[in-house]
Amino acid sequence: MTVSTPDKSVASIRWLKAPTSWSWVEQANACPVEVLIDHAHCERKAAGSAVQMMFRYLCEPGLGEVLSPLAREELEHFEQVLVVIKARGRYLEPLPSPGYGAELAKHIRKAEPHRMLDSFLVAGLIEARSHERMALLAEHSPDPELRQLYGDLLTSEARHFGLYWTLAESRWSREVIKPRLEELAEHESRALDGKLDDPQDVRMHSVGIQS
Amino acid sequence: MTVSTPDKSVASIRWLKAPTSWSWVEQANACPVEVLIDHAHCERKAAGSAVQMMFRYLCEPGLGEVLSPLAREELEHFEQVLVVIKARGRYLEPLPSPGYGAELAKHIRKAEPHRMLDSFLVAGLIEARSHERMALLAEHSPDPELRQLYGDLLTSEARHFGLYWTLAESRWSREVIKPRLEELAEHESRALDGKLDDPQDVRMHSVGIQS
Ligand SMILES: [Fe+2]
Ligand SMILES: [Fe+2]
Ligand SMILES: [Fe+2]
Ligand SMILES: [Fe+2]
Repeated sequence: MTVSTPDKSVASIRWLKAPTSWSWVEQANACPVEVLIDHAHCERKAAGSAVQMMFRYLCEPGLGEVLSPLAREELEHFEQVLVVIKARGRYLEPLPSPGYGAELAKHIRKAEPHRMLDSFLVAGLIEARSHERMALLAEHSPDPELRQLYGDLLTSEARHFGLYWTLAESRWSREVIKPRLEELAEHESRALDGKLDDPQDVRMHSVGIQS
Repeated sequence: MTVSTPDKSVASIRWLKAPTSWSWVEQANACPVEVLIDHAHCERKAAGSAVQMMFRYLCEPGLGEVLSPLAREELEHFEQVLVVIKARGRYLEPLPSPGYGAELAKHIRKAEPHRMLDSFLVAGLIEARSHERMALLAEHSPDPELRQLYGDLLTSEARHFGLYWTLAESRWSREVIKPRLEELAEHESRALDGKLDDPQDVRMHSVGIQS
């Protein structure tokens, strides 16, 4: 299932409350392999969370049909990134996390059906931020192979925002979705505040938005 | 990555300690849609457990490269089965479990590296049993569409046994693997003893082996 319109791909970034700062781009370009390894983890986690949602709402019609192909695509991205990491003589390593995902998860309401809506919107916002940052790397990385890689991957992330949006829209009215997306988008920008112990460290979702 | 030789596909079933009984086949043919729904759950769980192993042994070289494509393939199977279920006017439903997976999980040793070896072998045995039963349905289902579906899916399951075998073989000697696989295969046959409350119920891994 493909929900890819230019509209949606712009919408993805339009929802973000604060754009990424230039200093994040410079930091990311200074540690390309760390960012790649972190990115492989992001793809794997994106797959894991699609699978997890699919398992949680197993009998919800229309969900497995969307989340299963999405999980497959994220796994494929994971494999693509892993190839590049290995070609550079490295492998997956555990990396200290800036806590972005954990911070965002706190804002998912516990009771259904809010939990489902919030889960879709948070997942969508993570896709939107990934899309935004990958677009920056696709344009500004000094490394042609990485520009190509991020360029290939980022079009999917825009589409993924669209998928989560559509999942929400087919179950709630825009009047319900939009204000909640606004709120969660505020939290998303604030979640990018997470400090790493080593200020030289950089992650796909580490600190770095324009203030 | 494809580890598909006729040898391996025979090996898959050869490892099983007890063949499935004819009465299981008759029961399964009497409730084709229930078996399909249960089968969709099996595919989903196979994907989930590959993802889970990949997450657990994240930094183990050579693992993500095998388990990620395997998980993608199981998700694709899940989607294929879901299409057939929907075409028959049904959807996923929670089904009481015969406890096969839970029973097998008990025999996975807790301490590493045993846990990794046992996880590979148990996953491989589940693939082998799925292969065996799907082959029976591919041959003996009275429904041509289901014969075709199970026929399409079963070749992968044989290959999946081979993948788990190869993951074990590249980390342990045959002298270590074979006796442990023998033991776990005994448990696998006994795990097919799980009684369902309703004796008319049938599952991909419900009771039914030749005594
Ligand atoms: Fe992705
Ligand atoms: Fe994505
Ligand atoms: Fe499968
Ligand atoms: Fe399989």
